[in-house]
This record gives sequence, C-alpha cells and structure tokens, in this order.
Amino acid sequence: MTHQHDHDRLARIGMPEAVLCGTKSVDQVVAIVGELARSTSDPRLFTRITDDQLDALPAALLDRLAVDPLSRTAMLNGRLPTRPGRVTVVAAGTSDASVAAEAVRTLEFSGVACEMIVDVGVAGLWRLEARLDDIRAADVVIAVAGMDAALVSVLGGLVASPLVAVPTSVGYGVATGGTTALHSSLASCAQGVTVVNIDNGFGAACAVVRMLSLLGGPRS
Amino acid sequence: MTHQHDHDRLARIGMPEAVLCGTKSVDQVVAIVGELARSTSDPRLFTRITDDQLDALPAALLDRLAVDPLSRTAMLNGRLPTRPGRVTVVAAGTSDASVAAEAVRTLEFSGVACEMIVDVGVAGLWRLEARLDDIRAADVVIAVAGMDAALVSVLGGLVASPLVAVPTSVGYGVATGGTTALHSSLASCAQGVTVVNIDNGFGAACAVVRMLSLLGGPRS
Amino acid sequence: MTHQHDHDRLARIGMPEAVLCGTKSVDQVVAIVGELARSTSDPRLFTRITDDQLDALPAALLDRLAVDPLSRTAMLNGRLPTRPGRVTVVAAGTSDASVAAEAVRTLEFSGVACEMIVDVGVAGLWRLEARLDDIRAADVVIAVAGMDAALVSVLGGLVASPLVAVPTSVGYGVATGGTTALHSSLASCAQGVTVVNIDNGFGAACAVVRMLSLLGGPRS
Amino acid sequence: MTHQHDHDRLARIGMPEAVLCGTKSVDQVVAIVGELARSTSDPRLFTRITDDQLDALPAALLDRLAVDPLSRTAMLNGRLPTRPGRVTVVAAGTSDASVAAEAVRTLEFSGVACEMIVDVGVAGLWRLEARLDDIRAADVVIAVAGMDAALVSVLGGLVASPLVAVPTSVGYGVATGGTTALHSSLASCAQGVTVVNIDNGFGAACAVVRMLSLLGGPRS
Amino acid sequence: MTHQHDHDRLARIGMPEAVLCGTKSVDQVVAIVGELARSTSDPRLFTRITDDQLDALPAALLDRLAVDPLSRTAMLNGRLPTRPGRVTVVAAGTSDASVAAEAVRTLEFSGVACEMIVDVGVAGLWRLEARLDDIRAADVVIAVAGMDAALVSVLGGLVASPLVAVPTSVGYGVATGGTTALHSSLASCAQGVTVVNIDNGFGAACAVVRMLSLLGGPRS
Amino acid sequence: MTHQHDHDRLARIGMPEAVLCGTKSVDQVVAIVGELARSTSDPRLFTRITDDQLDALPAALLDRLAVDPLSRTAMLNGRLPTRPGRVTVVAAGTSDASVAAEAVRTLEFSGVACEMIVDVGVAGLWRLEARLDDIRAADVVIAVAGMDAALVSVLGGLVASPLVAVPTSVGYGVATGGTTALHSSLASCAQGVTVVNIDNGFGAACAVVRMLSLLGGPRS
Amino acid sequence: MTHQHDHDRLARIGMPEAVLCGTKSVDQVVAIVGELARSTSDPRLFTRITDDQLDALPAALLDRLAVDPLSRTAMLNGRLPTRPGRVTVVAAGTSDASVAAEAVRTLEFSGVACEMIVDVGVAGLWRLEARLDDIRAADVVIAVAGMDAALVSVLGGLVASPLVAVPTSVGYGVATGGTTALHSSLASCAQGVTVVNIDNGFGAACAVVRMLSLLGGPRS
Amino acid sequence: MTHQHDHDRLARIGMPEAVLCGTKSVDQVVAIVGELARSTSDPRLFTRITDDQLDALPAALLDRLAVDPLSRTAMLNGRLPTRPGRVTVVAAGTSDASVAAEAVRTLEFSGVACEMIVDVGVAGLWRLEARLDDIRAADVVIAVAGMDAALVSVLGGLVASPLVAVPTSVGYGVATGGTTALHSSLASCAQGVTVVNIDNGFGAACAVVRMLSLLGGPRS
Repeated sequence: MTHQHDHDRLARIGMPEAVLCGTKSVDQVVAIVGELARSTSDPRLFTRITDDQLDALPAALLDRLAVDPLSRTAMLNGRLPTRPGRVTVVAAGTSDASVAAEAVRTLEFSGVACEMIVDVGVAGLWRLEARLDDIRAADVVIAVAGMDAALVSVLGGLVASPLVAVPTSVGYGVATGGTTALHSSLASCAQGVTVVNIDNGFGAACAVVRMLSLLGGPRS
Repeated sequence: MTHQHDHDRLARIGMPEAVLCGTKSVDQVVAIVGELARSTSDPRLFTRITDDQLDALPAALLDRLAVDPLSRTAMLNGRLPTRPGRVTVVAAGTSDASVAAEAVRTLEFSGVACEMIVDVGVAGLWRLEARLDDIRAADVVIAVAGMDAALVSVLGGLVASPLVAVPTSVGYGVATGGTTALHSSLASCAQGVTVVNIDNGFGAACAVVRMLSLLGGPRS
Repeated sequence: MTHQHDHDRLARIGMPEAVLCGTKSVDQVVAIVGELARSTSDPRLFTRITDDQLDALPAALLDRLAVDPLSRTAMLNGRLPTRPGRVTVVAAGTSDASVAAEAVRTLEFSGVACEMIVDVGVAGLWRLEARLDDIRAADVVIAVAGMDAALVSVLGGLVASPLVAVPTSVGYGVATGGTTALHSSLASCAQGVTVVNIDNGFGAACAVVRMLSLLGGPRS
Repeated sequence: MTHQHDHDRLARIGMPEAVLCGTKSVDQVVAIVGELARSTSDPRLFTRITDDQLDALPAALLDRLAVDPLSRTAMLNGRLPTRPGRVTVVAAGTSDASVAAEAVRTLEFSGVACEMIVDVGVAGLWRLEARLDDIRAADVVIAVAGMDAALVSVLGGLVASPLVAVPTSVGYGVATGGTTALHSSLASCAQGVTVVNIDNGFGAACAVVRMLSLLGGPRS
Repeated sequence: MTHQHDHDRLARIGMPEAVLCGTKSVDQVVAIVGELARSTSDPRLFTRITDDQLDALPAALLDRLAVDPLSRTAMLNGRLPTRPGRVTVVAAGTSDASVAAEAVRTLEFSGVACEMIVDVGVAGLWRLEARLDDIRAADVVIAVAGMDAALVSVLGGLVASPLVAVPTSVGYGVATGGTTALHSSLASCAQGVTVVNIDNGFGAACAVVRMLSLLGGPRS
Repeated sequence: MTHQHDHDRLARIGMPEAVLCGTKSVDQVVAIVGELARSTSDPRLFTRITDDQLDALPAALLDRLAVDPLSRTAMLNGRLPTRPGRVTVVAAGTSDASVAAEAVRTLEFSGVACEMIVDVGVAGLWRLEARLDDIRAADVVIAVAGMDAALVSVLGGLVASPLVAVPTSVGYGVATGGTTALHSSLASCAQGVTVVNIDNGFGAACAVVRMLSLLGGPRS
Repeated sequence: MTHQHDHDRLARIGMPEAVLCGTKSVDQVVAIVGELARSTSDPRLFTRITDDQLDALPAALLDRLAVDPLSRTAMLNGRLPTRPGRVTVVAAGTSDASVAAEAVRTLEFSGVACEMIVDVGVAGLWRLEARLDDIRAADVVIAVAGMDAALVSVLGGLVASPLVAVPTSVGYGVATGGTTALHSSLASCAQGVTVVNIDNGFGAACAVVRMLSLLGGPRS
Repeated sequence: MTHQHDHDRLARIGMPEAVLCGTKSVDQVVAIVGELARSTSDPRLFTRITDDQLDALPAALLDRLAVDPLSRTAMLNGRLPTRPGRVTVVAAGTSDASVAAEAVRTLEFSGVACEMIVDVGVAGLWRLEARLDDIRAADVVIAVAGMDAALVSVLGGLVASPLVAVPTSVGYGVATGGTTALHSSLASCAQGVTVVNIDNGFGAACAVVRMLSLLGGPRS
C-alpha cells in the first residue's frame, strides 16, 4: 500500500495538499513524512500532529520540520511565496488560542501576513470595540469562538470585509464538542458570514487564501 | 373525568395555575373555560389559545375573556393586584414579538409594570446601545431571541440586573425549532444568565414574578 | 410597537438590511413593507415572501415590488449600483433551483453579474466537467446542493476561486431538513470551502458581496 | 499573545471575571494565575481547576490560592464583601455534590451566606418534605440534580422564591452528559423555574448574585 | 396482496393482534376492517383510528364497531373475557387524557377493571397525595405524563406495585415529541419503573395484561 | 455534609435503597460503605462498583462485602429473604453478560430465584428456539441485548409472561452507547414489552421484584 | 433554465436516470415530463409523484404515463428489456406496503421478475417461517420494515442470498421518521446485510439490478 | 455460563460466525479463543482484536492465530476455500486504511480475491480517474470513506457493478464518529449504492460474499 499524493493540487486550487495527522496512526505519519522528505523539495504543511507522532520521527526527519506546539503544526521545506493581503484572526478567549494558531500558521505557511487578537469575547464588549479599527483594516477576518460564538454575530455586524467563522469545541454541557458554536455561527443574524467545520483553523485559512486571490482584480 | 385544579397555587408560589391551551383539544379548552367561569371569581390566565378554540367558545364565555391576539393569551376575571418592580422585555426582532408579548401579558396579568423593546438585534449593535440606559433602569430584564440569540450574551455583559433569556423557535436550517437559540443562551459567555424553555414567554414572566418578591427585602 | 430599522447597515457592511418574511406573520410583513415604502427610496430586498403575504398587500404596495416567484424574493426601489466581479451559482439538481435563485436574485439586487448552472450533480460527472471552464472563469462560485452535497467536494477540488456552499433541505430519510448536506459540506475533503446555513441562498450571496470588495485591491 | 482581562466587569455587572480553567491548557492556567497574582489585589475566582494545573503551579503561587478540592475552585486575594440575602443549595444526591459545591463556593466568594442540603431526591419524598421549612426560608433556592431532575419540578411547586435549576451530567444511558436533566428542568411543569447550562454551578451562583441585588428595593 | 393476520397470537401471548390504524392509509384500514368483520367473531381492537378512516367505512361496518372518540379506539365483536386484577391509570394533565384513555380502553377490551385519575401533576403535589390510597390499592399502576414526566419518579417512590410509565408527546420546545418525557422516565431516580414508547397507551395496557397473569400464582 | 439515606424504602416499595457507585467518587463510596457498615445490619446492595473504589476500601470493610466481578456488584449484610417466583434472564451475546449479571445479582440479593441464558441472538434463531420451553416456564423474563436488540421483539412474540427489555451499550457505529438497542426495544413490534434505561440490569430486576409481588394474588 | 438530463446513465451504470418528483414543485415536474415525452422514446421512471403533480399534467401527457397509485410511480415509454434473476420483496406489515411497492415497480420497470410478501413481522414468527422456502428461492431479497425492523436481522440469519434492507418511516414516538428502523438495520446482528436510505424502495431495487448483473458470471 | 456458538451458520448463510472481540472483555476473548481452538478445526475469524487481548492469550493459542495488525483481525485454522469473483476495495484516504483492511482480510478469509486502492479521495479527482479501469474490472466494489464520503457518490455514478459503502469514523467536528459519512452515503445521489454500519469493513465483506454467490447463475 503506497500513498498517492495529490501533487497537482497547488497548481489546481492554489494550495498544496496538507497532511492531517490527527486521524492517522503513528506509523502512517512517520511513513508519510519520510516519503515526502525524500520525494519533494516543495513546502508541505502537517496539521494536528501529536506528541506521539513527533516522538516517533527519526531525528533526521524531525530536524527538517519546523514544529509549532500551540497550533500542533509542522512545516517541511519552508513556506510558500508571499501573497498580497492582510488577515486578522480574532479569538474570543484563551481557550480558543490553539485553533486560532492553526489558522495563523496555515496563513504564514501560505505566504500571507496575519495578526492574532485574543480575549475579545462579547461578555466584555469594550475589549472588541477597542480593537475594532485594527480589525476593520484587515482584508479578511477570521473569527474563532467556542461556547455561544456570539463574537461572530457582533463582528459580522461591524465589519464589511469577508468574515470566516471557526467554531471551536471549547465548552461544556450543551456546548460540548462545538455544535452550539457551529450552529450559532451558521444562524448568525449578521448577513454574509461563512463558516467552516468545528476547530478547522486550517480550513478557514485555506478559504482566506482563495479569497485573497481576488485582490488581483476580476478574473475576466 | 373532571379536572382537578390546583386552587392552592397562588398562596403557595405566588402565581395561580394558568391554562396552557395549545396542547389541549378544542373540547377540553371549552370545558375548562366553562368550569373556571362558573367556579371562580379569581383572575385566571389562558396561554397559546388558538383561533379554533376561541371560535368554539360560546359567546357568553368569550365575552368574559380579555383576548390578546399577538400573544395568544386571554384573561378571565381581570388581573392580579399590582406588585412593585419594573421589567423590560427586549426582543431581537419582529419575528420574536409574539413570544415577547406572551411575557408582557403574563407580567401585566400578574400586576407588574413592564416595557417592550423590539428590533435590537446585535447585527446592528447601535440600536441596542441606544436603548441601554432604559434597559439598565429595569429591575429585571427578559431577553427574547431566536436564530443565534447573540443578544443574550451581549446584554448579559452590559447589565447587572437579573436577566432571563427566552430562546424562540424563530429560524430555519440549524435554527429550526429554537434549539440553537436555546443552546446559545445556555452556553452564554456572559455569567449569570438564566434560561427558560423555547418560546416560553409565560415561564420567563413567572420567574420574574418570583424574583420581584425579593424587592421587599430579605426573607429572614 | 414600531420597527427599528438598521438604516446604517449599507454604509457599515456594504449591504442594506433585508427583510426575512418567512418567519413573520402576514400582518407584520404588510406593516414593514408599508413603512419602508413610505420612509425610504433606497433599494430594499424581501426574502422568503409567501403567497399569503403577497395576497395581503394592498395593490398600491404590490405595484412597487418586483416579485420573483421561483426565489420568493421581492425588491423595492430597484437595485443597488453595479459592482465589479462575476459569480457563478451552480445547483446540483432541479430541486435546488429555488435556493439557487435566491442567491442569484440577491446578487442581482446587489449589482453583481451572475450566471446559474443547474443539473450538474456528480452522479453524472460529465455534466459538471462539460461546464468546468465556465465555472473556473467566475471570480467566486456558489455551490447549491441537497442530499449528500457531493458536488461541493468535487467542485472544491477543481476550482481555485472562493467557493461558498449552500446546503439545501432537499431530501428525505437521513437527508430530511438538509443536515446531511450541511455536515457533508462542512466536512468536505476539499480544503478551503466555506458554508452557510441550510437553504440560505441570501446569506451566500451576501458573503460573496463581501468577497468581491477585495477586487479593488488590498485595503492597506 | 497577552491576555486581555475584563477588569471592568465587577463595576458593570456586579461580579468580577472568573477564570474557567477546565477548558485551558496547563501552561495557559499557570500563565494566567501568575499574571493576576502580579497585577491585582482584588479577589478572583478560578473554577474547574484540575490536579495537573495545581501541580504545575509554582509553590509561591499555590500558597496564594485557597483551593477547595470538592468544588475544584480556588480563590486569589480572598473574597468579595458580604452581601445581604440567604441562599439554599439543594442537591438530589451525593453524586451531584461536586456541582452543588461549585455553586456554594461561588456564592461564598461573592459574599453571600448559603447552606447546602444533599440527598433529598424525590424517590424518597419524605426527605425533602422534612427540610421544606428550611428551604422556604431562603431568599433564593438553587436545585442541583442529574438523571431525571424530578427534584426541580417538585421544589418548583412547593416554594415561592426564585428557583434556579442546575442540571448535572450525573447519569448513564439516556442521562449521559446531562441532557435529560437539562430538558426535564426546562420542561418543568412547575412555572417560573429558570435553568443554567449542565454542571454550571458557577453560573447559577452568578445568577443568584444578580437576583439578590433586588433585596435593596426597586431600582427606580 | 392479501393480509396475513397473526390469528394465533391470543393463544401464544395472551392478547390478540390489534390493528394500528394511524400508520395505514384509509383504503388499507377499510380493507382490514372488512376482512376481519367477515372472517372472525373474536373480539378485535383498532387503535389510532382517524376520522377520515371512520368516515370511509361503509355504514354496515361502522355499525359493528364500538368507537371511542377520546382514545381513538374501536372494538369489533365486543371484548375479551374478564380477567382478575385492578389497574389505575394516572395522567399528569388534561393534555395527556387521550393517551391515558387508550390505555384504559385497551384494558377494558382485555377484560381488566381499571380507573383513570387525571390532573395530578407534581406542580401541585397535594393532588397526588390526596389520591395516594386509591393508587396504592391497585395491582398495577400506569403513569401517563408529558413535559418533564416528574410524576413518574414521584409515584415510583411512593407505590410498591408494578409501575409502567407512558411518556406522551405533549409539550413544546425541548419537550416537543415526547423525548424529554421518555428520557426522564427511563432515567427515573425511582427504582423498578418500566417504560413504553411515547404515546403508547396500548402497549402499556398490553404489558399490564402480561403482568396480571401472575395473579394466578407461580407458573411452576 | 452527611448522607441522608432513604431507610424507609424497603417498607414503602419492597426494595431497599441501593448505592450506585459508578457516578460517585472514590471518597464518596468509601464514606458511604463505612456509614452503612456502622449503622445498619440490613442487607444493602452496591452496583457498578469500580476497581479503584474497591482498592480504596479498608480491608475490614472489604471483608464485609460479597463482591462479584462480572456484575460489578457487592452485597453488605447478606441478602433479603426468599420471595416466590422464578425469573429467566436472557442475553443476546457474550458482550451483554455483564449487564445480565447485574440483573441476576440484584434478583439474588432480593431473594428471587433466577437463571441466565447467554448467546441466543436471533442471527442464529435455532439457539433461542432450543431454549424456548425453559424461557416459557419462567414467571417473568428479562431480555438483555445490544446492537439492534432484535431478540426483544422475537421473544416478545413467543412468550406470554411479562418481558422486561434491557438495552445495552454494546455496539459500534450507530449502535454506540445503546441508543439503537433502546429505540428498537421501545418500538418493538411485539406488544406489551416494557423497557428500562440502557445497561440498567439493576432497574430491570427491581421492576421484576415489583411484578412478582402479584404472585400472591389481587391486592383487593 | 433548462434541465440537463444524464442521458448516458443507462450505458454507464445499467439504469437510466429516474425523476424523483417528491422534492420538486408541480411546475418543475410538469416541465420535466413534457421535455422527456418530447425528447426520448426510451423508458423512464418517475417516483414519488404526487396527486397535485398528476392533476397538473395535461391529459395528453398523462395518457402516456403508466401510473401506479400505491407506489406513487409512473412509467413513460414502457419498461426496460427483461433481465435474468428473481427477487422477493418482503414487507413486515401493511403500513410498509407503499415502500415495498416502490421497490417492486422499479424492478418491474427494470425488467426484473419479482414477488411481494406482506405481513410477516417477527411478532408472529410462524408467518415468516411459513414463507421461508419461497424466500430462499429468490436470487436476491429486499426486506422492507419500519418500527424496530427486527425482520431484517431474523431474515439475515436465515437466508444466504444478498439481502437489502429498506427501513421505512412507519412508526411513532422513537420510531418517527424511520431512524430507529434504519439504525436497527445497520446494527443488525446478522452479518452481510446492506441498507439503503429510509423509504428508498427505488434505491434498493437499483442496488438489486446491479447485483443481478453478476448472474452472467465473473467479469474477468 | 458457557458460550453457545452458531456452528450451523456456514451452511445456512455461507459464512461462519465471526467473533467480534472489540466489545468483549479480555477474559471473554481468551475463553472463546480457547474453546474454539479445542473444539473445531474449521477456519474462524476474529475481528477488532485488541493488543490487550492478544497479550493475554497463552503462547500456544497465539501461535495458532494468524494476526494482522493493520486490520486488527486474526484467523484460526486458516481460510475458507476459494470462491469465484474479484473484488476491489477503494479507500478515500490513508486514515481509512484500517477499516479497508478489515474488509480485505475478511474477503481473504472467505476465499475471495481482492485488491485494495488507497488515497483516491475526490479532492484530487484525477487519482480516481486514473484507476477507473481497474475498478470497473471488479465484480463488486467496496468504497471506504470518512469525512463527507463524497467518493461514494462519485464512484456510484461511474461503475455499474454492485457498490457497498463503508462509512468510517475518521473525521472531526461534524464528522466525528462517522455519522456524516454514513448519512452522506445513504443519501447518495448515485442510485443503487448500499451501505453498512460505520467502520464495518467486516460486514461489507460479508455482503460481498453473499453477492458473489450470484456468479454461479440464477438460483431457480
């Protein structure tokens, strides 16, 4: 059983295939890292990599990876070339920081400049208002929030730029697993917010990369 | 089969038994209204009364009821004596007005002064901020909201008074039936918000009546 | 009870407040249309308007509305000025056409040029491939699909532009209500797809309007 | 990434921001405790603190915390000033004691006198009836119950004071995670009961603090 | 397509096959009633028969049925012979009366003496306590309740006889469809309560018939 | 905080209060066992006791308990007096044996004679048919099954005695947690089956004890 | 908007595209029937066609359709050529007959011989056993069942041929909508049963057509 | 308690009873392996065997088992005789390989030739198209996919052979546990796809064995 990488993806959709390590076994991740390290010099991103997987990598392979503990990401062969545009990733609370960091790291991997603002939950609305000018200056905004995700609706009513919501699995009781944050984001009373899967900081960043391609002007 | 009314309830918990008509057949409601009209001169409240039920009531009975179409409530034998305290019922949108009106009417039936503010959803935050002083002046606030119910968290972070959230079944897709608004309210990032069942404007008002009894000072 | 419109929204987020009629009573919609017809000459959009609501409108009001039966939308005072960019709305099947039309009409209202392609479900993949060049030429793509929404993943792997998925409530059994299409879109194996609420063609179009603002180049 | 505390919250809503440790990493909690210990002499509450987090705290920091193992809470810089009012926290069974203790500790932190009564489940109704006079003497009652949460409805029909229900995640089978207790509390046949999220003893206590502010008489 | 009746069932399990009309078309019910009227002189029970189905029956067939509107049941060829034992069916509220009546009618059809007590919800506990001696005198008790079904747990802690709970679909919000009442009954803190499907008054009565067979003493 | 035992329960409902250890902490269980060992000489049952809890008990206390590993039960002070009647506990597969054993041990504790039959799942129907005469000879039958719980319906159509279904959490995919077995049992096409909570072997046995009280003949 | 039919499907997968009318508007179905009637002489199948849709068809179009009321199907241009193989469709009860008939009609349309057996639910197991030889003689068996779908597991343990389960939405309470039947079929203790969507008699028949292609022997 | 094996199953349905180890305790698996090793020389398959269970087996027993780590299967006494037909197992991604391997091993155990193709998810459609001729050459195809399972619909529209979908529990957020993949497969827009329980590679292989029996030609 050999792995069949989608080597064509960068040309086709503007982003290379990333390796989601969290759903793979230790053996599978070690094998894939090894294969890619041997076969390509292009930048590649690994997400949700676990301590067990990192511990199992031979030192020579580990040395080639740039690992970030908070976001659980690793980069092989550096980053993609710089792209135009500036993104702000806003996280409601400290508990959401890991997911927000996955978005930030994916953007950095993709060559996009970005800033991360944490602890602006709407329970203390003044904190968000204090940062609003910064947020409005971004080309695209990513909002990362768990629990009731009220941040998404409030932001959606205040900024005109594209806004991608990332519901997180942070929470307990009815918020366990992130379904409340997801549904709240989808049912946002602010019009024109789009949403990605729970905890999918990577996916939000990829969506933003698609959007930033518009900065070059109309396609036709 | 005769009905066994809980005639003791006003003395026991401060509110008489109300009749929830929406889950009863036309025949059952006609019978209960008739029984109560004959047997008591105390004020009684009917909620979620339907057009079919109203149409089936003999004119003599209907004349004794004070019916309010928006809230689907009816009062028999007037209202309870006036109680101290002032309540504000805040509704996110026009679609929530019917549930908000059920809360208002139940408060009025209970002898409580109240005001209703509609169309202050957080997608246009300035509308809420414009009314904030009024809302802060109330002894208790009821927040009525469907969809993502973000209004609940924003209000909860801005007012110090007791805040009762009434999620409504207004919405579509993931918000159908009100579960998203309910969960969002329960998982509110604002601390100390309490919640009642979906569309339960009546129950929120009853909870407020319990709370207003505290205005007389400590029990012991 | 007077309605408090968010008259500031166009300036703030690039789109005026729309009126979602489907969750309002006939009386409420008649009142709101009347108020807006009297008070503004700006273009306004009404969505999910029902036959009962249309039938209840006075002829003078109805004459001022441009009603589209398939999408259940109506426009008052024409459309917004033309914006740059070109959008393709792709619908998996005929059953999804009504939701797709809501997206198209909202884009047209917003001054955006768009094309609608129907019946390109992946069960007959050649139909999608036959239209792929057209779809790739759009600045942004909206994919509308019910049932398993497999169209979303296939498209997401083939186009580089921003892709907004609108799951529809079309389906039966496990697909009833659109949850399967929603979850399938959120869990898409194609990276960078964003999603809106079930049947929310309006919201997808609003998201696209946000994105098209990027065509003017970086904000800072 | 620095933390942005809502230092204004006590003045705004009558309670300071608490730190929910259960959803944060060990590193994040250690950092926040350190920051607060350095930056403020005001009382602060930590909830759902884990053994791992406590073990990771430097001794000098740990010494400054008053830790309670049953409720998993810790206080920094003592408690808030005493407030008027008396609260009874009623727990259906021993298994609910941890959540009940979180409510008790939050009340104590807030300067509120309270009593805790355990093992009064309705399967042995005489136990509740034996304590009824005590419970009725409280200004506000918190009912903590898992499984079917029948205690909530029985209490709600017997006391006139405000009653806040805290469903717990205690249970198995259909009661796993606390959804049955939550839904049962929300659908209580006793009118005027309000509910907080599953296991949210902290939130119930905060709601009570809001209510006790009414003891001073009407606001206007 | 001819129907294949389980003519052997009375001998095998003590109850004949009943016809659940609610899930069948008008044509199917008319055909089955006709077939049974022609082919058997044994007593047969029809449940959840609709007005449309009754209206479609030829007068000659309708004359042979004993129809009860409240319970939506009909009997053909009278009842089964009398059996020993006495059953009490307890319903929490008027809204549950229809389901309770289905249980009562099924017991009467089966030759079992029974009594029905309505409006003893635990929100007014004294009503239940006033009837407790009557209820304790029954050989088996059926408890019918919607919403939170707290009646089930309270009764289960007070009587020693077998107790069968019938959750009803009466309710709104989280109680819609009866799932809350079902889960609450299954998670009852009173030990030894058994439960049947939502609204299944018929099934509860059949279970009781099985139990009453024990009145004759041990089988071996 | 002292525990308030329902010492009256045996007299009231025919079974003493049991201690469900699985939802309690190690400290709580050790305290309760100690209290009961000191305060009563009546038989008491402990269910779902864990290895951690057993390990934490002082040897002197442990010696007084009769522990059964398969069912995770322990008895203090022996068993209740023998009662008339004979019960058969039927388990679909080996994986269900632990739950079935909980029912068996609870019956033995209650003084009831019982037999356990395992591995009679309907995928090999002849196995059930081979034991049918034995099963039919019991006064009451308990059916324990996970996955699709088809055993419940098949048995329900073959035996006339009371049949109590215990759905188990054995299964994977859609059967995870036992909901499929529960719903399948509740929706059984065999009439007169009653159901207890998932994995609740104890509750099924308690229900049977209630039923066996009928063996003495009608109550009045 | 013109419809884009997958005219190539018969050649590609052995079955032509069918038109699912139930999710389409009356206007859409009338348009599609008209288009197909004009454009093709190949046999085409319409499923879940409603009375409203049939009533709206011009007489000339209606005359060209062979409509079957029980299964809600219609055929245009006759049937496909006869294929080898014999199928038995087994339905648990009369209420399942409509779904079973959809499978039968789809098979007939596809040129496959089939037989339908109704009323063989496992509550009266002898009925199934009486027909077992007939069922075993079929090349493929389709089992149609609602409620607990126990028929699926029993059949699966008794026949060696391919067995396709069609759960139906017949049922109430926990069985409402067919989820219980679906999950029960998927979790069947009988190995090698496959399942289609709830009420999808059409899909089951299509699956059988795929399987019958094997009767010609190995492909390579 | 002795185990009662369904020794007759091979003759009855064409496959012997397999032992699902994952839901059994270590002791139970050791006992069953021992019993079978002593009592039969026929081939037997064990699935979802855990490391703990393997570690607990006596060396003499372990030596008799052919264990495969990826699929977590073990064979006792070799394999069944070779059967005609050729199967292709297609897996969307590396994360699905373990479930796919369970299908492959069950087919090999059953004497069926099969091939496994991995990493052909539709996000890179060209990978699937590159292998399409191979896949079309198989008599039956098994598609194994998690997340959105879009592979199932795409394959279903491209191949004419029987197609069995195995949704996997691979995924996060809304895809957690495999429900999205399951529902997506059941609602596939490709007609005639059948589905087994989540992660049930064994069941899919058993279904294929049933289907391959058709290769011998019509039964009658």
